[in-house]
Amino acid sequence: MKSSSLEHQPINSEVGVYDCEIHLKFRLIEEKGALRDRDQLLEMLLDAFACGSDEYLEPVQVQVEAQEISEMDASPQMRRQLIRLRNSRDLA
Amino acid sequence: MKSSSLEHQPINSEVGVYDCEIHLKFRLIEEKGALRDRDQLLEMLLDAFACGSDEYLEPVQVQVEAQEISEMDASPQMRRQLIRLRNSRDLA
Repeated sequence: MKSSSLEHQPINSEVGVYDCEIHLKFRLIEEKGALRDRDQLLEMLLDAFACGSDEYLEPVQVQVEAQEISEMDASPQMRRQLIRLRNSRDLA
Repeated sequence: MKSSSLEHQPINSEVGVYDCEIHLKFRLIEEKGALRDRDQLLEMLLDAFACGSDEYLEPVQVQVEAQEISEMDASPQMRRQLIRLRNSRDLA
């Protein structure tokens, strides 16, 4: 029985739960009024930041952290998802 | 003479400089080792967050602010860009 290497990619790498924190401060040139919609504000600012630094955007502070936590501290929903992921791997 | 409101969107809106702050905390299920590369960490976490909440990601805190500041507090580079933008509008 032959199987391609694609079918045998290592899929048994362990998964974990991470506490993540992103803290960004930057200055942005924008049209007045464009940032008034609170519902769209986060998406607009993340899009602007993703475009990178240039004459329109100057980063002031960029802080990012990811820390693995105990699964016991995760929500029941996340723990169920971890079980699902591991079961599907055991079956593969 | 009738004209649609779409044709009369104001295109000469003023631009300003904004102090922006984004503070995100969330929990993420991820493969162990995937978040080890510090250079890629911010991009990976922003991509994950942009995918939205589901069984893999739970927002803990989402804080976003944009506050207009005086142009005099902006950097010389930004002030030059503002002048450029206004000049190009005056010519249009």
